[in-house]
Amino acid sequence: MTSTPALVAPSAGAAFEARTVEHRDLRDDDVLIDIKFAGICHSDIHQVREEWGSAIFPMVPGHEIAGVVSAVGDGVTRHRVGDRVGVGCMVDSCGECEFCKNGEEQFCAKGAVMTYNGRGYDGEETKGGYAQQVVVSERFAVKIPDGIDLDVAAPLLCAGVTVWSPLKRWGAGPGRKVAVIGFGGLGHMAVKLAAALGAEVSVLSRTDAKKDDGAALGATAYHATSEPGVLRELKGSFDLIINTVSADLPMQTYISLLRPLGVIANVGLPTSNYEFAPGAVVGGSRVVAGSNIGGIPATQEMLDFCAEHGIGATIETISADQVDEAYERVVAGDVRYRFVIDTSTIAVSA
Amino acid sequence: MTSTPALVAPSAGAAFEARTVEHRDLRDDDVLIDIKFAGICHSDIHQVREEWGSAIFPMVPGHEIAGVVSAVGDGVTRHRVGDRVGVGCMVDSCGECEFCKNGEEQFCAKGAVMTYNGRGYDGEETKGGYAQQVVVSERFAVKIPDGIDLDVAAPLLCAGVTVWSPLKRWGAGPGRKVAVIGFGGLGHMAVKLAAALGAEVSVLSRTDAKKDDGAALGATAYHATSEPGVLRELKGSFDLIINTVSADLPMQTYISLLRPLGVIANVGLPTSNYEFAPGAVVGGSRVVAGSNIGGIPATQEMLDFCAEHGIGATIETISADQVDEAYERVVAGDVRYRFVIDTSTIAVSA
Repeated sequence: MTSTPALVAPSAGAAFEARTVEHRDLRDDDVLIDIKFAGICHSDIHQVREEWGSAIFPMVPGHEIAGVVSAVGDGVTRHRVGDRVGVGCMVDSCGECEFCKNGEEQFCAKGAVMTYNGRGYDGEETKGGYAQQVVVSERFAVKIPDGIDLDVAAPLLCAGVTVWSPLKRWGAGPGRKVAVIGFGGLGHMAVKLAAALGAEVSVLSRTDAKKDDGAALGATAYHATSEPGVLRELKGSFDLIINTVSADLPMQTYISLLRPLGVIANVGLPTSNYEFAPGAVVGGSRVVAGSNIGGIPATQEMLDFCAEHGIGATIETISADQVDEAYERVVAGDVRYRFVIDTSTIAVSA
Repeated sequence: MTSTPALVAPSAGAAFEARTVEHRDLRDDDVLIDIKFAGICHSDIHQVREEWGSAIFPMVPGHEIAGVVSAVGDGVTRHRVGDRVGVGCMVDSCGECEFCKNGEEQFCAKGAVMTYNGRGYDGEETKGGYAQQVVVSERFAVKIPDGIDLDVAAPLLCAGVTVWSPLKRWGAGPGRKVAVIGFGGLGHMAVKLAAALGAEVSVLSRTDAKKDDGAALGATAYHATSEPGVLRELKGSFDLIINTVSADLPMQTYISLLRPLGVIANVGLPTSNYEFAPGAVVGGSRVVAGSNIGGIPATQEMLDFCAEHGIGATIETISADQVDEAYERVVAGDVRYRFVIDTSTIAVSA
């Protein structure tokens, strides 16, 4: 077994503790990764607080992992020691079903193995990126090109690919008007990526608080949706809306912001149902879509695109002892735009 | 002015009367069409009965028109006297906006002119296909290939293209599992077209009443959805569902029949809102889409495809004096699968 310092949530909602945890010995297809940085995703908080149903404790969260390969199993061919790699939301899948073969491992018929708070096919509990090392199958480690620093790369592994997938599926690019609802961890990546893809990007944020950042990150318009009349004026404006918000929104109102044939792609999980009149989509052949992370090929494609366009996440780097406080700030929406843990600061008491 | 025998609804819900109506003199770009057959679309009934808001009376319904060109304006280049042509839901659009230029005239920024119960850009009331002649811009007359008889071609102009558009947009074809909800005028065309496109087609009908027809029209499976447990067993089965039903359906249940990345495309207009949990679409990147008829290029493409594959609508041909009765039967779902009026039977009393 490999042992490594990690941040452990001992039980639901408890403060993190720095402890040593164990990983499996390398299988033939495994790589051992020395983790340098791990992003904090809002879904980490939901799971640590057991807000998404029963969770596995003690838990090491983290599925925005950037590091360097430090050892490889005997059969590994994709990566070498010293390679800069990332790991996202998944660490295994059957590899044989139609979805795996199409590079949509998140829809694996056998059920993809989540990076943490999950179990491998052998029953082993998975442990995530708030740690100094992790062991994963080489198939689930993607290359981080030299053009991106590891700290700003980490959040790309979940936040990046989660918005990349719908931007690509729905054709964000030149001549297309894209709006991004919510200007946080996911939203700021959607703005950067959509702009780099050549689309004309608008930010739809509740307030004007981040207005300056909108333009800085590539948006050509910024609308404070809590101001009266703003949404009404935007009717029929957009080809594609990426909705990154998990709060309940008036879906029919947002559908009405679409042009004919337009798409609203939702990546968040509000608690209330979506509700809208059939005519809201039928009349203009509009589309209400969901989108769930992205497969491994899409993740690699996104990273390569980011390297080519000089894109990384906009981050606040924190040390291991700041994670509890960071969680409070994420819940309060007080982060621009992603916390990234410098995992070298995880110090296990003797 | 051109005058022609027509079936006229004098007021909302009143019985039809055979009367002579007038059409405009041919403009440079107009064609005069001798109508041979006109399909009865459920939306005709909604409009004649003023169930879709204020309507224009007297009304000549009909937007499933098949006939022969009998005269052309001086500037007409697309059609010649003697050509077999069809007219669908639209008779004019601006021709200059992005949507018109892309052949999606139904989304014309100026507003497409509907074939009846509408007004042209000059204010003239439009009159539809329950008549022996109609005058339309040549841009809105499509060619009916020799391979299709005019009677079975008529319903293709609305029912056909209405299901063709979502089948094409969402990639119905070999290797794709397509379900069709509702096995009526639209549904039977969706089954024929999806099967001819190479998809594996299932009919989802309330009862087993039309089971034999399912296979005859190209479906490989038929499910009676009112039977207990049937929908539960179909979970995760389909890549594409074409929902042709205007009754309220449990949308979340039908979304659950989709495979990951699957699409339910709705062409009907139920009165109640759609309602479903965000997770129903987000988890599997599923899609709830609407679809509104189709543009002129799609209509032509569909007709050419039908000719190539020997496809027409399955019809019951009726005479003009049977239309009131036919409306009752359409509302009762008692038609296999489209009524078509032989317009030569329209007899105006002296």
